[in-house]
Amino acid sequence: MEIEFLGTGAGVPARSRNVTSIALKLLDERNEIWLFDCGEGTQQQILKTTIKPRKVDKIFITHLHGDHIFGLPGFLTSRSNQGGETNLDLYGPAGIKRYVQTSLAVTGTRLSYQIIYHEIEGPGTIFSDGQFEVSQLKLDHRIDSFGYRIQEADFSGELLVDKLKAEQVPSGPIYGKLKAGEVVSLPDGRTIDGKDYIGASRPGRIVAIMGDTRKTDHTITLAENADVLVHESTFSQHESRLARQYFHTTSTQAAQIAVKAHCRRLLLTHISARYLGRAAHQLQQEAQEIFPNTKVVNDFDVIKIPLPIAVKE
Amino acid sequence: MEIEFLGTGAGVPARSRNVTSIALKLLDERNEIWLFDCGEGTQQQILKTTIKPRKVDKIFITHLHGDHIFGLPGFLTSRSNQGGETNLDLYGPAGIKRYVQTSLAVTGTRLSYQIIYHEIEGPGTIFSDGQFEVSQLKLDHRIDSFGYRIQEADFSGELLVDKLKAEQVPSGPIYGKLKAGEVVSLPDGRTIDGKDYIGASRPGRIVAIMGDTRKTDHTITLAENADVLVHESTFSQHESRLARQYFHTTSTQAAQIAVKAHCRRLLLTHISARYLGRAAHQLQQEAQEIFPNTKVVNDFDVIKIPLPIAVKE
Repeated sequence: MEIEFLGTGAGVPARSRNVTSIALKLLDERNEIWLFDCGEGTQQQILKTTIKPRKVDKIFITHLHGDHIFGLPGFLTSRSNQGGETNLDLYGPAGIKRYVQTSLAVTGTRLSYQIIYHEIEGPGTIFSDGQFEVSQLKLDHRIDSFGYRIQEADFSGELLVDKLKAEQVPSGPIYGKLKAGEVVSLPDGRTIDGKDYIGASRPGRIVAIMGDTRKTDHTITLAENADVLVHESTFSQHESRLARQYFHTTSTQAAQIAVKAHCRRLLLTHISARYLGRAAHQLQQEAQEIFPNTKVVNDFDVIKIPLPIAVKE
Repeated sequence: MEIEFLGTGAGVPARSRNVTSIALKLLDERNEIWLFDCGEGTQQQILKTTIKPRKVDKIFITHLHGDHIFGLPGFLTSRSNQGGETNLDLYGPAGIKRYVQTSLAVTGTRLSYQIIYHEIEGPGTIFSDGQFEVSQLKLDHRIDSFGYRIQEADFSGELLVDKLKAEQVPSGPIYGKLKAGEVVSLPDGRTIDGKDYIGASRPGRIVAIMGDTRKTDHTITLAENADVLVHESTFSQHESRLARQYFHTTSTQAAQIAVKAHCRRLLLTHISARYLGRAAHQLQQEAQEIFPNTKVVNDFDVIKIPLPIAVKE
């Protein structure tokens, strides 16, 4: 599991930062890539990475501002031209379907695959398949803007075969029952509890990716215990009034949320062109004073999200 | 007058060529820039040039395929964010207004200027102000695709003041009459003809910019005597069947048109990603065998269009 940042700028593209798009790469987990937002030029950014558009099979849009969606028609068209044949799920606020359908209709585009539209209605789970669950809540922006929580299912512990062999428990269908945690009677009269023969479990990973927003408690809910929180940081701590006025967040507000939500790591993005070079580093330092494990990300940064250490229940 | 190529690729962006956009820079002539097509990423390409979005006050769309228009909503929005306050004229096929208005409406975008839509109805002149005239004709593509002829008004000759002084013609309102070509009686009894005191005139320049098309006689009409013909060259001469099938032109067909239309220079663009490096050079060589003054252009090429040499009428 990796997050690759395809665009980390705010509002308008700058030379050093394109507008927003974030790829959640689930290649080891399911050979898929999920995109979060698709600002103009996302397909051009992808040309500079190893990402194959046909592997992108879900796109989650946080909100309908142009710097988050104007790359969508081009990406969808190129995915078709480049051999994409599998259905694509598109999640986002009401209006996203009209925007995409109009863009494709006006240009006479016929895709080689089907788009399945999921316009968000109420809060809650929007995708779940046993391996991953994605839920969302509305944030606090000028227009409807959503945050997404992506939660991986826990990994159950392995059956401790070496221990069973050492205790001369004969193999066979009995192992399946032990792995399921059942209490089993052995032919030699012993009774053993499967729970004693199952190794440490590993919790699944949690990634929280927010749309543009003011500081809001809904983010804390979405990011609770997250391995990684991706949050906007459009303004510095010295501009909290501007942040409030324009429905955005400061670096320190994002860090406060990461603390309250007990996150492991905070990645700050949606960096305004007013913060270049050292100024962007300053945003990072402001946040680190509150939440040390903070990084201001740049275009093409790839952040690996390792499995948490196994813990014995 | 210069043409700057912002994107010279076909269909999908490639690393070396973005999708189509062409800037006709009329900075000396009227401190304006006119864009022809606006594929995705045009505003990012502009960041690498000296072009100011607010100086773009006319955009001409050749046809509604995505690789020619998906950069329009982002460009229009950024023009507003970057201080554009003057009206913008948008010319193009029917449907362009719906596309732009939907994109702006869905994203809740309010521009700081007004877009004046000019959807093309019949063939003919679409703009004329005494200095420039733009006319269009439909070409031969899968969907409606237009070619544009931009014709500059002729420059009349200057009044030959030195000659008048040498012949001791007194200055005064008389000079205005002479410049207007009138016959004038002088106080000393001489009668002189203004036409003898007007220098050489210069014809205005002609630029012809075509949308995607098969080879068609309409291009010859639009490009007649053009200083520069910008034409697509999506295929090599060896793939004329593919060119016909996909409603495109080969390099040699474009050269044949330049010959028939008596153009001065041929610029080939809309180069498919299948022609990289030497292969693109091969396209150029094919065309040069028929029309020597041909160039396959690359992204960010700037082509100056000098005034034709003055000719005495």
